[in-house]
Amino acid sequence: MPEFLKVLRYQDAIQLLRERAPFQDVEVVDLAESNRRILASDLNSPEDIPSFNRSTVDGYVVRAEDTFGSSESLPGMVNCIGAVEMGEVPQFAIGSGECAWMPTGGMLPEGSNAVVMVEYTEKLGPDTILLSRPVAPGENVMHTGEDVNKGALIFRRGKMLQAKEIGLLASLGISKVPVLMPYRVGIISTGNEVIPVDHCPSVGQVRDVNSYSIAAAVESYEARSRRYPLVRDDRQSLHDALFKALHENDVVILSGGSSVGVADYSVEVMMSMPDAEILFHGIAVKPGKPTIGVAAGRKLIIGLPGHPVSALMVFYILCAPVINPVALHKVPAQLTANIASQPGRDDFIPVKLQESEGVREARPILGKSGLMSILAQADGFVHIAYEKQGLEAGTKVDVTIF
Amino acid sequence: MPEFLKVLRYQDAIQLLRERAPFQDVEVVDLAESNRRILASDLNSPEDIPSFNRSTVDGYVVRAEDTFGSSESLPGMVNCIGAVEMGEVPQFAIGSGECAWMPTGGMLPEGSNAVVMVEYTEKLGPDTILLSRPVAPGENVMHTGEDVNKGALIFRRGKMLQAKEIGLLASLGISKVPVLMPYRVGIISTGNEVIPVDHCPSVGQVRDVNSYSIAAAVESYEARSRRYPLVRDDRQSLHDALFKALHENDVVILSGGSSVGVADYSVEVMMSMPDAEILFHGIAVKPGKPTIGVAAGRKLIIGLPGHPVSALMVFYILCAPVINPVALHKVPAQLTANIASQPGRDDFIPVKLQESEGVREARPILGKSGLMSILAQADGFVHIAYEKQGLEAGTKVDVTIF
Repeated sequence: MPEFLKVLRYQDAIQLLRERAPFQDVEVVDLAESNRRILASDLNSPEDIPSFNRSTVDGYVVRAEDTFGSSESLPGMVNCIGAVEMGEVPQFAIGSGECAWMPTGGMLPEGSNAVVMVEYTEKLGPDTILLSRPVAPGENVMHTGEDVNKGALIFRRGKMLQAKEIGLLASLGISKVPVLMPYRVGIISTGNEVIPVDHCPSVGQVRDVNSYSIAAAVESYEARSRRYPLVRDDRQSLHDALFKALHENDVVILSGGSSVGVADYSVEVMMSMPDAEILFHGIAVKPGKPTIGVAAGRKLIIGLPGHPVSALMVFYILCAPVINPVALHKVPAQLTANIASQPGRDDFIPVKLQESEGVREARPILGKSGLMSILAQADGFVHIAYEKQGLEAGTKVDVTIF
Repeated sequence: MPEFLKVLRYQDAIQLLRERAPFQDVEVVDLAESNRRILASDLNSPEDIPSFNRSTVDGYVVRAEDTFGSSESLPGMVNCIGAVEMGEVPQFAIGSGECAWMPTGGMLPEGSNAVVMVEYTEKLGPDTILLSRPVAPGENVMHTGEDVNKGALIFRRGKMLQAKEIGLLASLGISKVPVLMPYRVGIISTGNEVIPVDHCPSVGQVRDVNSYSIAAAVESYEARSRRYPLVRDDRQSLHDALFKALHENDVVILSGGSSVGVADYSVEVMMSMPDAEILFHGIAVKPGKPTIGVAAGRKLIIGLPGHPVSALMVFYILCAPVINPVALHKVPAQLTANIASQPGRDDFIPVKLQESEGVREARPILGKSGLMSILAQADGFVHIAYEKQGLEAGTKVDVTIF
């Protein structure tokens, strides 16, 4: 059997693709434009947050020692000498037996070390405050650097930035961030039987599903998709289309042309691209066995099965982990039915999630291979490992959400 | 207590906001542009899928009855009378004792009702095929309408379209889809102490975190965000900024200005907008008690707490369900520690997900209120219901992922 016909395990296929994955350029974007972008380098904190001791409550700032022993029945009494203003450095110090009004976020004056919440205070006279609870030193205070220490590692390269990460970067004054340029992914559907979506199929024809579904999936992984016109099963047309798409993108995903019985120029044409090298031809998975991987210099060509369900499943299994390092989301659930599987390949079964008596269940959506309506009902898929003969009802599984 | 100071439960606040939510216009977009958009009407199938009986495998198309009794030791024998071509109507019928080569996706000829996979066949002579397995009528065949029946409901209004839904619509020839116009959400940070992100805070100042984090969160819910310049605690400035933002958006989210002790013109200014009506002032949640909801005609104004962690949490709890009908994603997990809570309010506690001996655990991230670095570590939050005094370690909880 020639080397290029060796059937690989899918994890090895992912590894091969990752090793040959195109370089991703780095661009520096404004923090406001960084949502869902992938960090291109480790980020360390340029400063302490907070940069001063601040109150976390509204109340009176005190020396904690002055509050010890205070209770509702025997309140402590302190002398109010002023009010801290938000956004201003207090121009006074708190001495023994003294307090000052303190808003949330205000800076602690010299001499003070805690804040009594306003709920536990009472104004006895213009300058006299009763305290009905003691506070410990540091209580209701956030100290300098307590949130983030200067120099501390904030996020590692590869982290996807979302609202909470962006919020933290904003608080640290990081207004520009280095992020990876998203991969440009070109998508080509091939096959004499494939017609545009807005055409009415004659018998024996099918509409072009893959360029739509794969493009949407690519975008969900924060890569940029570009759909190309349909290509007929013809060596020259495929060559020209692939050459153009490869020139304009980092990764090209072809679908169709990999089934026995259809004139199959796909591999030959892929191998005619500059610096082409086959990575695998066939992977030990169901669905998706006829998948092809080719490196062309620092670009990748991936040939998916033509069948829409298989094509989309293989995209999630094989392509998504390569074009975006952020892991697919997984949810634990309990399988509702036995699923048979053939050892010697990895099986991926679409499932629907449901709740039953407080238990999250994964119901396999079975049916004849190829029902797109079935995949559309699914919430995710379950993986049956290479060595397994199947999974029994009741097994705890991880459902990869798509 | 005046009506507008009544503290609501957060579910009621969501309900009030939903009832007064701005109308969403409908736009018809090309299927290729519909990724992550929300369907504006129910969609029914315009046709049967498939539109003809088609083979799901490569092999030989037969009359099933002719294969009964075939086995490896005693193979059946059929006469091959031709080959079905992909994308073409077979110009012949299959009679008794006959077969024809059949590619995956090919159309079944008249007279045939099943396909024998090529793996279970052998070519004995130019026109003679041996069959080592029987097939049942309909085996390896997808019948007309089996995937989708004409007229069947495909998706309901409110469904978010993603790769698999878009794939199904493509297969049905639905090349244009009616989708809801995303809400335009304006975001205004207020407060004398708040400075732009790229400025260096003097003591007592904090950087503008909210307009960044809330904008990113808004976009994650497929709405359009627009950040406005910082507004100082000044009635006229706030009025002008809010008026402009309200004119340019469907929803305006203000943050800051709701804490006791800060000059608070927020509610007055909100109520000075055209057709303003207060929906709630304060909700029984932690964090987020001082949140304000105002309807201004068919637009909404939501006043979030100024504190970045509270503001973002309240966005997820209260605003996200209003601006996008697609539910937040939840994951079941087991709590690792007791969490105390005060009955009479709904508590939301950030947690980090971890695996321990095959069990998915939710570890509460505790710490002083207000550590943005803590929220940035969290994977989601746990809800402690209004009537509960807390949750015990080991409790099964649903973690809302953010």
